Amino acid sequence: MTEKIKILAFGGSLRQGSFTRALLNSTLEMVPAGAEIEIFELKDIPMFNQDFEADPPEIVKKFKERIKASDAILISTPEYNYSVPGFLKNAIDWASRPYGDNSFEGKPIAIMGGGGAIAGSRAQYHLRQIFVFLNGHVLNRPEVMVPFMHEKIDKEGKVTDEHSRARINELLIALVAWTRQLRH
Amino acid sequence: MTEKIKILAFGGSLRQGSFTRALLNSTLEMVPAGAEIEIFELKDIPMFNQDFEADPPEIVKKFKERIKASDAILISTPEYNYSVPGFLKNAIDWASRPYGDNSFEGKPIAIMGGGGAIAGSRAQYHLRQIFVFLNGHVLNRPEVMVPFMHEKIDKEGKVTDEHSRARINELLIALVAWTRQLRH
Amino acid sequence: MTEKIKILAFGGSLRQGSFTRALLNSTLEMVPAGAEIEIFELKDIPMFNQDFEADPPEIVKKFKERIKASDAILISTPEYNYSVPGFLKNAIDWASRPYGDNSFEGKPIAIMGGGGAIAGSRAQYHLRQIFVFLNGHVLNRPEVMVPFMHEKIDKEGKVTDEHSRARINELLIALVAWTRQLRH
Amino acid sequence: MTEKIKILAFGGSLRQGSFTRALLNSTLEMVPAGAEIEIFELKDIPMFNQDFEADPPEIVKKFKERIKASDAILISTPEYNYSVPGFLKNAIDWASRPYGDNSFEGKPIAIMGGGGAIAGSRAQYHLRQIFVFLNGHVLNRPEVMVPFMHEKIDKEGKVTDEHSRARINELLIALVAWTRQLRH
Repeated sequence: MTEKIKILAFGGSLRQGSFTRALLNSTLEMVPAGAEIEIFELKDIPMFNQDFEADPPEIVKKFKERIKASDAILISTPEYNYSVPGFLKNAIDWASRPYGDNSFEGKPIAIMGGGGAIAGSRAQYHLRQIFVFLNGHVLNRPEVMVPFMHEKIDKEGKVTDEHSRARINELLIALVAWTRQLRH
Repeated sequence: MTEKIKILAFGGSLRQGSFTRALLNSTLEMVPAGAEIEIFELKDIPMFNQDFEADPPEIVKKFKERIKASDAILISTPEYNYSVPGFLKNAIDWASRPYGDNSFEGKPIAIMGGGGAIAGSRAQYHLRQIFVFLNGHVLNRPEVMVPFMHEKIDKEGKVTDEHSRARINELLIALVAWTRQLRH
Repeated sequence: MTEKIKILAFGGSLRQGSFTRALLNSTLEMVPAGAEIEIFELKDIPMFNQDFEADPPEIVKKFKERIKASDAILISTPEYNYSVPGFLKNAIDWASRPYGDNSFEGKPIAIMGGGGAIAGSRAQYHLRQIFVFLNGHVLNRPEVMVPFMHEKIDKEGKVTDEHSRARINELLIALVAWTRQLRH
Repeated sequence: MTEKIKILAFGGSLRQGSFTRALLNSTLEMVPAGAEIEIFELKDIPMFNQDFEADPPEIVKKFKERIKASDAILISTPEYNYSVPGFLKNAIDWASRPYGDNSFEGKPIAIMGGGGAIAGSRAQYHLRQIFVFLNGHVLNRPEVMVPFMHEKIDKEGKVTDEHSRARINELLIALVAWTRQLRH
């Protein structure tokens, strides 16, 4: 019997009723067999300042520890101004430091998100470049980019669109398989 | 007689002794004829939350007002993890909102920065994509990317390298010319 | 009375019935007042080899001459494998050389294209980065990215979708305005 | 005893004395234990036209067959105009088609190259995005980007710079390890 694959998931914008937060929450309803998902809340992570990286705030220590304890990472990213939102990049900046203590080293990673017509794709390609440096192994497929998210999520923050749910499910299964493939 | 071109400059990392902050400060020693430069301090800008965009914190109101009052923008960007630092992207995210009140609309923009061997170039290309959405007009040349910045800046945060100083000077002059070209 | 703005347009894939070629052809039906559009055919441009850049093939000489004689450039790009098609990049590579004789220097440029769900946007952002080096001034807005092009173009290669036609028309008008703005 | 890892290598510009070709050739002097390297010559590959993808030219059939028969791919890319050269993208475009017959599917891939001060890094990041679509698994590290290549290669096209040779050697060893890691 193999051990469970532990997935740490984070992201979603900080506003009430965030659509990318809804995507994140929906994963808890479709945890793949042999995996478990923990959602980490980014909202109390302060602004990164390299002067404090050797002894970061408690919330950052906790974030780094949860990443390291995980087997795989799942990020739900909004797109702000054709790129990664500042608050999400800031959390990644903390977790990557100090130099030589990059929490993402060698981790399998899956990305999802959404937006308007282009479905937040630009933020995802920037994230992929970021993980080249951090030596994260980002899954190529499926790419989960939900266009016009507001039509696909209800007032309670539930993803109601069947096509989107199926894609998220596919992503989770692919992430588990990718995590197993990268182990030797 | 033409009016002075008002340049609002910001960026540089938040740590003491930041190199990109030194680049920013150096511009005050070489303000081009017919221009003035004001440096805006980003360090007290909190994390963006769309729920508060209609009535943002005072520091954000001030930032947006200074951008709007300027004729041109100069950004000094560090590169964190092959992209724009979270804190800088976060400041841009605030200034771009709410929808329809993007402070960068139509502004001439120049970018500079630096880093290791590749000189922070990756952060600059991500910034350029961000300003496509924000309809900033980013100067193509010169590209000021200072490699191995620690060798080019002294303990007091002064840019001592003549080549780098000449490039920054060239950038400022080109930004003033670009600003005039874009006016009709 | 001002002189006409001469727009040189090129792109579209080489296959029969190319959708991006249809976009290109459609511009001839909506030439803005005060402008003229000439389409340049790329299909006979051979593979770039730097050994021959000083005395390039006749078709390349012609291409460079038409670009230089133009006031503005319009590119219709397909997306192949999440980037600019090889044949289009190859034509740009020829026109950029030899060093110091870059035909695109200072030209106003507009980009359009399309594709599947993400509408070919990735190719357009790569093109924008290419023109940073070539000092082309690429229009920020509108971005014309036609999703699911096969549904919007008829058998005769005519763009039948009214929304897409309106966007192309808007792009042409914005390119003319941008060209005038960049002149002083 | 494990079977040899077959690496198919290609790239380098088409001109005589190409530096990126020299990088490619140098790999033959440092084939890692347990691996073999074959260099494929791209120069006779014609321009891609989708009309002929079902029955492509012989050279393209050969290229696709050699990719498929390989265990890993090594690409040496020049940077032309801040992106992938047209001729190299064109070869990739052929090998990716027809839809459903993408020769790069699931292949481990390593990229190297070089250029001026920024060492051709921009072309490499565009290549990485291309292989997201093609589901190639591009090695994150080391990134081999040789700055000022003309100083590091002699008249006979031999890479003389010890640092660059060491990095290429490191890349080859990492590619072999990555190829083994991706197998299960």
